Amino acid sequence: MNKFFQTCAIAGLTAAAAFTATSLEARPSRATTGAKYIIFLIGDGMSSVQVQATEAFLAANNGLDPNVATEMDNAENLLNMNLLPVRGINTTYASNRFITDSAAAGTALATGSKTNYGVIGKDTSLTQSYMSIAEMAQEKNYKVGIVSSVSLDHATPGAFYANVDSRNSYELIAVQAAQSGFNFFGGGGWRRASNNAYPAAFPAMSGNTLTEMFTLAGYSMLNDETSIRALKSAPQDMVVCTVPVLQSSDAMPYEIDRAPGAISLAEMTEIAIDCLYANNTTGFFLMVEGGKIDWACHANDPMGTIGDMVDFDNAVGKAIEFYNQHPDETLIVVTGDHETGGLTIGFSGTGYETSFANLLNQASSYEAFGAVLAAYKTNRSFSDPYDPVSENIDSAMKTQIVDSFGIDYDSLSAYRQQRLEDAFDRSMGGVPLTGTSAPSGYVGGSTTIDSLNYGGYDALTMELCHQFSQDTGLGWTSYAHTAVPIPVMAMGFDDYRFAGFYDNTDIAKSIAAAMRVSHDLPHVVAVED
Amino acid sequence: MNKFFQTCAIAGLTAAAAFTATSLEARPSRATTGAKYIIFLIGDGMSSVQVQATEAFLAANNGLDPNVATEMDNAENLLNMNLLPVRGINTTYASNRFITDSAAAGTALATGSKTNYGVIGKDTSLTQSYMSIAEMAQEKNYKVGIVSSVSLDHATPGAFYANVDSRNSYELIAVQAAQSGFNFFGGGGWRRASNNAYPAAFPAMSGNTLTEMFTLAGYSMLNDETSIRALKSAPQDMVVCTVPVLQSSDAMPYEIDRAPGAISLAEMTEIAIDCLYANNTTGFFLMVEGGKIDWACHANDPMGTIGDMVDFDNAVGKAIEFYNQHPDETLIVVTGDHETGGLTIGFSGTGYETSFANLLNQASSYEAFGAVLAAYKTNRSFSDPYDPVSENIDSAMKTQIVDSFGIDYDSLSAYRQQRLEDAFDRSMGGVPLTGTSAPSGYVGGSTTIDSLNYGGYDALTMELCHQFSQDTGLGWTSYAHTAVPIPVMAMGFDDYRFAGFYDNTDIAKSIAAAMRVSHDLPHVVAVED
Repeated sequence: MNKFFQTCAIAGLTAAAAFTATSLEARPSRATTGAKYIIFLIGDGMSSVQVQATEAFLAANNGLDPNVATEMDNAENLLNMNLLPVRGINTTYASNRFITDSAAAGTALATGSKTNYGVIGKDTSLTQSYMSIAEMAQEKNYKVGIVSSVSLDHATPGAFYANVDSRNSYELIAVQAAQSGFNFFGGGGWRRASNNAYPAAFPAMSGNTLTEMFTLAGYSMLNDETSIRALKSAPQDMVVCTVPVLQSSDAMPYEIDRAPGAISLAEMTEIAIDCLYANNTTGFFLMVEGGKIDWACHANDPMGTIGDMVDFDNAVGKAIEFYNQHPDETLIVVTGDHETGGLTIGFSGTGYETSFANLLNQASSYEAFGAVLAAYKTNRSFSDPYDPVSENIDSAMKTQIVDSFGIDYDSLSAYRQQRLEDAFDRSMGGVPLTGTSAPSGYVGGSTTIDSLNYGGYDALTMELCHQFSQDTGLGWTSYAHTAVPIPVMAMGFDDYRFAGFYDNTDIAKSIAAAMRVSHDLPHVVAVED
Repeated sequence: MNKFFQTCAIAGLTAAAAFTATSLEARPSRATTGAKYIIFLIGDGMSSVQVQATEAFLAANNGLDPNVATEMDNAENLLNMNLLPVRGINTTYASNRFITDSAAAGTALATGSKTNYGVIGKDTSLTQSYMSIAEMAQEKNYKVGIVSSVSLDHATPGAFYANVDSRNSYELIAVQAAQSGFNFFGGGGWRRASNNAYPAAFPAMSGNTLTEMFTLAGYSMLNDETSIRALKSAPQDMVVCTVPVLQSSDAMPYEIDRAPGAISLAEMTEIAIDCLYANNTTGFFLMVEGGKIDWACHANDPMGTIGDMVDFDNAVGKAIEFYNQHPDETLIVVTGDHETGGLTIGFSGTGYETSFANLLNQASSYEAFGAVLAAYKTNRSFSDPYDPVSENIDSAMKTQIVDSFGIDYDSLSAYRQQRLEDAFDRSMGGVPLTGTSAPSGYVGGSTTIDSLNYGGYDALTMELCHQFSQDTGLGWTSYAHTAVPIPVMAMGFDDYRFAGFYDNTDIAKSIAAAMRVSHDLPHVVAVED
């Protein structure tokens, strides 16, 4: 049983109640000055399926049965984002690929222009840079904030302030963040190690470390929880907040792994709103990304995904709380940049049955389980060379599997035990075993049978994520993104613009229109050599 | 290369052009008398993913590359349903199961009440019967039509006129159809053999065959194409039209198997509109079901699915053509009753790549391929007992596979060849081979490894459907329905009611409201013992 059983629906419920009580009586006016407060929340990798699965989880988490409609209908199970009255559906494809990535999708959502995958804020020829809607807000003297659960130089946040040929140019993206003049950055850290001096290739920052660079640019750099939380009562105008405990790739921990009381994405969103609203008569633009929904979906990790969906939705709840204070001036837009994992709610082995209560058995993310597994591997003595016939899942590993996923190895069918044994061999053997390096015969990201089965992740972890998903009634088809259409939820000023069926680039255009900015999108800001 | 390359986007394009040219200048008024013409089109098993995959197919079918955004954007690729301006998303769960079936979902869409899966038009206790929105239209003296590509007594069409404890009560459903007084039934046939006398259990019809029953009830029974098409110029008021060539379960052929020039779902829709509109000053309600989208998705058959999506969308095009003649009085609503198959656009083996042009290589539905396979099995001499080691895919079968799916066996990886050989053994051996009758260990529809792998369908056919899907970049997770949310598209009179996020029962309520019927839904019409 995981901690969500006790805690995770609370923030959502509070916001929901507040919304139900007050907002529908106070719909926004249609002033010509534009939306004053824009909160744009992007669930990376989030489609309707991730949303629906999370509501079913909340039902189970509330002790209710999603297989009973009257219990599923309970208002406590509703996500905040599903309370937003306006609904749209958008297409996501990149200029040069039907299945997009977060760079091209982020560029579409931030600038209203499609581009090639991997590119941030530039056109497909890499010769023109586009202005983002965050920068347009800044041009109107709005304050601007960027919040993400992943590193703040990642593709989605980067698309709102950076213009680079490659999303992997973390050095340059960080420089552009420091140069942005945006008022608030909060969430994860920066992919570039902060103690490295910047190379001479960045003249403006040459010789400075990342911290020195942001400090020179006028930012307070906060990375302890006391200082970050102090912003609620003593907001600052130029601040970079990084939570002190990060997981891999300088990201905030998965919600399911977050230490009790540690700052969540939702709390960081609240702090961002506090800072942006303070001493501000013009307005603000805040982008909030639930960035690790995508990462968990890449790894086909059910509660990694749903936990971060809940945290992201609690951030939507914070936006709704703000809306309730400023209903005539606020626009909330929620969407995903693409779907990840090919998640569906149905598995061939379980037919029409689902068991969302099973989700309560996952104790940690796939990443945290991977750390446990690495320690186990170090501590156990295997024969040398590794022998897949004699080396098997032992009682210690069985205990770990039941503790982490609630899967009782001994009660499984021979078929499922064998799949776990095969994965265990692959995982503990460390190198592809006989046959696993053979080509799968598919043209795409996966070239070997091994990568087809495990997607480049730890084999045992993947097999457990898959069996755990399947016991729940969830299915996955990919370790990559998919091209399925993505919902848009909106409420507030000019929310009608987000109804209907359109392209992801139209979302940026509609937000710009709601802000009454003077530029047609995409708006070229620089023609490069 | 299949026939769609030449023909299938044509009707869609025509309707699209007509719509683009005229409809946006002529949006409906908000009269108090209610929508006069309601065309409600239900894609059984259709979610946003089936829609998006079909648009990508149309791009490939038009010689364009879905991996190039500017080519994907081409208006020729747009489905008619995606031209409808209003968009909603609905939840589908049944009263007693999170993953619904077509009976419970049809009841929700037809009566505004949730019920248990398997039940049509009655409450969960089976003691109350509900009036459908089609019957409410009839109460307003509107004419009513029911069109489906599957049998006309199937769950979805049945939900609009029948009240039965079980969707399998085909005898009783047919009786209720004959008693409905509806004006037009068209599409497939009736599950109950038409030459059987009705048993004494149905007093009103006792002793009559199905044909006699409908004739006594005042219907013309047409099942030749000349007579059916004659309705366009000589419409009739009480008519049952069944296409002369049916596939299994008394359904119309899959679009991909339809003989050139044979009546399609779209043409049957046109005929229904002609009949319902003729000599009619009050109005009409027409329900059109694309029923075999679901069946193809159950079988994980890509072009079975997409072909029927195109035909269904062409039916939407017929509705739009009618709308363009009566824009102030017509309401079009398009939705699915649930998703089937867990279709996504992304597969672990192909990563970020998709190749929709591959779809042009499928020559027939899984059902038609199954017939070819049965003949092959009859003609080939296998050892007795069947020997999975020595019996292999031979050159004749290789030729069949390349002809039917464009898959060149000899160029496949060993991994993929082995999967086909395993399936071939299972298919030709006829009974589960060693290990395949072993339990899969999942609680649900599938209990054996064999059914997990092939879902109860012919093994080789399924393996080919899977590999063909995967080469395209499509993935499936189930042979059953899923619980993913379903889009709603609407245009015309009171279309605003269909914007937002709501439950499937709300769709019936909104249609009733658009018709200004006097009943609150669900409306109980009979309390049974």
